[in-house]
Amino acid sequence: MLVYIAGSGAMGSTIGYHIEKNTDSRVILLDYWQDHIDKINENGLMVSGKVEDKIKIKAMRPEEAEEEADLIVVMTKSMALEAMMEAIKGIIGEKTQILCLLNGMGHEKILEKFVDKNQINMGVTIWAAGLTGPGQIEITGKGTIDVQNIGDDEENGRKIARLLDKAGLGAKYDNDVMFAIWRKVMVNGTMNSMTSLMECTIGEFFDSSRSKDIISELVKEFTEVGRAEGIDLDKKEMLEYIYKTAEEAKDHHPSMYQDLIERNRKTEIDFINGAVVEKGKAHNIATPYNKIVTQLIHAKEDIRGAK
Amino acid sequence: MLVYIAGSGAMGSTIGYHIEKNTDSRVILLDYWQDHIDKINENGLMVSGKVEDKIKIKAMRPEEAEEEADLIVVMTKSMALEAMMEAIKGIIGEKTQILCLLNGMGHEKILEKFVDKNQINMGVTIWAAGLTGPGQIEITGKGTIDVQNIGDDEENGRKIARLLDKAGLGAKYDNDVMFAIWRKVMVNGTMNSMTSLMECTIGEFFDSSRSKDIISELVKEFTEVGRAEGIDLDKKEMLEYIYKTAEEAKDHHPSMYQDLIERNRKTEIDFINGAVVEKGKAHNIATPYNKIVTQLIHAKEDIRGAK
Repeated sequence: MLVYIAGSGAMGSTIGYHIEKNTDSRVILLDYWQDHIDKINENGLMVSGKVEDKIKIKAMRPEEAEEEADLIVVMTKSMALEAMMEAIKGIIGEKTQILCLLNGMGHEKILEKFVDKNQINMGVTIWAAGLTGPGQIEITGKGTIDVQNIGDDEENGRKIARLLDKAGLGAKYDNDVMFAIWRKVMVNGTMNSMTSLMECTIGEFFDSSRSKDIISELVKEFTEVGRAEGIDLDKKEMLEYIYKTAEEAKDHHPSMYQDLIERNRKTEIDFINGAVVEKGKAHNIATPYNKIVTQLIHAKEDIRGAK
Repeated sequence: MLVYIAGSGAMGSTIGYHIEKNTDSRVILLDYWQDHIDKINENGLMVSGKVEDKIKIKAMRPEEAEEEADLIVVMTKSMALEAMMEAIKGIIGEKTQILCLLNGMGHEKILEKFVDKNQINMGVTIWAAGLTGPGQIEITGKGTIDVQNIGDDEENGRKIARLLDKAGLGAKYDNDVMFAIWRKVMVNGTMNSMTSLMECTIGEFFDSSRSKDIISELVKEFTEVGRAEGIDLDKKEMLEYIYKTAEEAKDHHPSMYQDLIERNRKTEIDFINGAVVEKGKAHNIATPYNKIVTQLIHAKEDIRGAK
């Protein structure tokens, strides 16, 4: 099986590493960062953190990929997804399955422009990783991956879940992946946006006196809109999940913080807090907390001149 | 006439300087910062910025003041007002007038614990100044002061306004000072809180793409609550005033930024954005934007360990 990782940053490389290391599938990492590609091809992918390893793996630019894919794991930034799909059109055949593990909500609409619904698998992961340099990743936690085919091809969805699980990624097929996606959006929509705004670790924000009020209001809006969309979200259960996740990652800076504060890059806020504002409008549900958080993050991008 | 300035930080010293310099009244600066007091008594008060000057003026600790006051201008931080009034009880006589120029809303309730309503004058100033060191102030702009007696003693209120105007402070008696106070709270509640949150200048925030939306929502809540309180506030007019003020002060860091970011001190957010949230509750008006801004500033105080 030929697996491409379309977008080989910290998380993409982590997934590619596990599949290449632990299964018979071939993996090709696709990315636009030339230095990253060159270092991987010259020295292999260096892994630190929970695992110390070095692995030989192929990397190239999206436009250089030629061989038809069995599976493409898309792991770009949300804003870059459509351009990536356009760039790799040539390796997508009728039997190619896509697995989308991007943070946030609404990416299936972009994928449907390029492939049939039966070829689309939505997923959610809570693995945590960082890029420590070109060709170098740090895996900072052990996670899970939930996968579901959003068309009628459950068989292929299950095959993907089995592959990822065999790779050591803690994967399972999940008949209610939208629930898991919304739950993760809530985790991102609280700890990612808040630590980026406050420029602190997850623990520093969660320990501050007003964090409970802020998180409670954000999650209230998320669950109201989610329920209007047919997702069975319980506020109390979501809060427990968020606090448990935050406790486990308290010394961590989430990906949005890494993007905005460490690398001065634009964030995916429109696909996280911004997405619930947009969905809320459709159901006539007010989401002022998520709205101002989205606006403040964009303001911060502007002030910092984030690219 | 004997005038005390109770709280002689940047603004208190600026007012004291003008009165001492340009009128026959005697001025005594009261403060708890011993180094500041000593430097002023040894070398005089050093003034830079719009004016370059050095003036001989008396400074002491509040508990050292003994002579009964004709006028006390209170210029502490909001949170320190009650303790200051307690400390200077001994210099307040039946004829002593109080002028309160603190940022924010609700201070008259504290003053009424110590003096009759006829002795209380509320005011609002848009002078801008900073402390550059002990005994040193920088006056960064020219402003105005509006004064109104909140009891029945308009005559004494007018006398105070004339004194301050003679001092060169651009003062006038204002029969609708609550309007001016609310308008200033809106200026503080947009530019002070936002620049503190974003750690930027006024201009940097106002130039950012989402600032218009954020300011518009904050001002909408302020004007709704203000109107419910009987203050004739027009949203469009307020926005014009805020934008004009912001343009004039675009390179400036407001006092809240100086407190929180430069000096790591707790802010007056509860008397600004927090005050409209509290007043909104009484009128059953939702103020989510002001609420989260208040919570975020408190979160930031906690994370920074502000004192």
